Amino acid sequence: MTESAISYLRRSLALPPFHQWLRPELVEADEATGKVTLVLAVRPEFLRDPDRPEVHGGIIAAFIDIAGHAAVAGNVRHGVPTIDLRVDYLRMASGAVLKATAEPVRIGRTIGVVDVRVTDDKDVLVALGRGVFSTRTG
Amino acid sequence: MTESAISYLRRSLALPPFHQWLRPELVEADEATGKVTLVLAVRPEFLRDPDRPEVHGGIIAAFIDIAGHAAVAGNVRHGVPTIDLRVDYLRMASGAVLKATAEPVRIGRTIGVVDVRVTDDKDVLVALGRGVFSTRTG
Amino acid sequence: MTESAISYLRRSLALPPFHQWLRPELVEADEATGKVTLVLAVRPEFLRDPDRPEVHGGIIAAFIDIAGHAAVAGNVRHGVPTIDLRVDYLRMASGAVLKATAEPVRIGRTIGVVDVRVTDDKDVLVALGRGVFSTRTG
Amino acid sequence: MTESAISYLRRSLALPPFHQWLRPELVEADEATGKVTLVLAVRPEFLRDPDRPEVHGGIIAAFIDIAGHAAVAGNVRHGVPTIDLRVDYLRMASGAVLKATAEPVRIGRTIGVVDVRVTDDKDVLVALGRGVFSTRTG
Repeated sequence: MTESAISYLRRSLALPPFHQWLRPELVEADEATGKVTLVLAVRPEFLRDPDRPEVHGGIIAAFIDIAGHAAVAGNVRHGVPTIDLRVDYLRMASGAVLKATAEPVRIGRTIGVVDVRVTDDKDVLVALGRGVFSTRTG
Repeated sequence: MTESAISYLRRSLALPPFHQWLRPELVEADEATGKVTLVLAVRPEFLRDPDRPEVHGGIIAAFIDIAGHAAVAGNVRHGVPTIDLRVDYLRMASGAVLKATAEPVRIGRTIGVVDVRVTDDKDVLVALGRGVFSTRTG
Repeated sequence: MTESAISYLRRSLALPPFHQWLRPELVEADEATGKVTLVLAVRPEFLRDPDRPEVHGGIIAAFIDIAGHAAVAGNVRHGVPTIDLRVDYLRMASGAVLKATAEPVRIGRTIGVVDVRVTDDKDVLVALGRGVFSTRTG
Repeated sequence: MTESAISYLRRSLALPPFHQWLRPELVEADEATGKVTLVLAVRPEFLRDPDRPEVHGGIIAAFIDIAGHAAVAGNVRHGVPTIDLRVDYLRMASGAVLKATAEPVRIGRTIGVVDVRVTDDKDVLVALGRGVFSTRTG
């Protein structure tokens, strides 16, 4: 009997020291499609401006990398180094929580391609990401 | 008499709450070309693995965003929201310090395009970034 | 009374000398969402291999650029120079006809961001594109 | 005795039916670095406007794909499908000849990353490209 994708992903999301600071949280994983949903509770140290509640673009890029990785890793059940990552910033991201939905576009023997959407707590799309991850083992 | 690029950039790099956690440091700014060099002292909370000294890809993406922004902002002297960012990860980044060199490719009235190279403390290239930033005012 | 998006786009798609060779054809334009659909009848000179019916990646990139442009131009009713373009190739594209569906993600005063999907004549997704276009006038 | 990179690349550049129409020409290949230089003689059917001598962005994207491919294929001596391609358009490209210089950034067992610069016949940089190609065999 195999471990469920959700428990595998929760366990592997908890390990990286960077994640222990950022604290992305898996809230959903669909084993059929590989789609995963993560949330990020926004803390003051994530902001780009001391006076405005706008999340720094670097935090959004990191969140997209993590969500994209989870969508591929949940499928192949091992770490998948990021080959390249692209982020389009559409609107300033404010609010208490960000949500990233990552969906595999294609998972092959050597690479996986993923689309990521980041929305704020009013469900407004704030950024789009696309990444290529290495699915090769050994 | 205008403020030097280097003092403008040091001041603006210090403001964002996220930077106060990450602590990217400007070490060089060439006013003629707009090229800037930043260093990042690697701390345990930047890592992707509890057992290996490899910097998380999200930290590298954030560092590239910050360096690219500095190369454009140093030129136009105001904040320049990131429009899009692309990162190619070439090798695992280990070592005590990362360096990002960001060079403007073109600075126009509405957008600026920047190339960023990230090297480790052995001067090995670990990642390449390219970003488009909005230079428009008002 | 304004010209419909579809007649504006058909007219502007017909003008470029390169399009007269490639012959992308607009088959649908939704004025509410800005989504456009173009088809491309594959000819032997579009192929990457003399012995296999696979469309060259350069043709696919050009088709994505044209479809993305149409989705923004149909909205603002003027030419919108491409700022940057990204293409992810998912599978070899074979068959007699390719279809590109381009959907604006955000149309602003200075830039527009568009997503493009390219499918073959069996409706299989062969490539994804994303582009940023300059919407500024004058 | 192995075939020189330049004769391998000339032969493989001549094969694709699309190249027979576009006619990119290899003018230099450095076996040590893998850097290749291609030129493209601009013809009327490459233009974006019937009244101005500006090369269509789709042609530039295709030229970048071909140059990037050559820089990797010259190294591994077999076809290397494009995984993804990114193009930043910096200025309108006019003039009789475009030149693309493609330089491998990293060639690994499964992927190769390449940087491409496109200049016009006054040596002005008009576009930048970056691509990831699959170097895997079988």
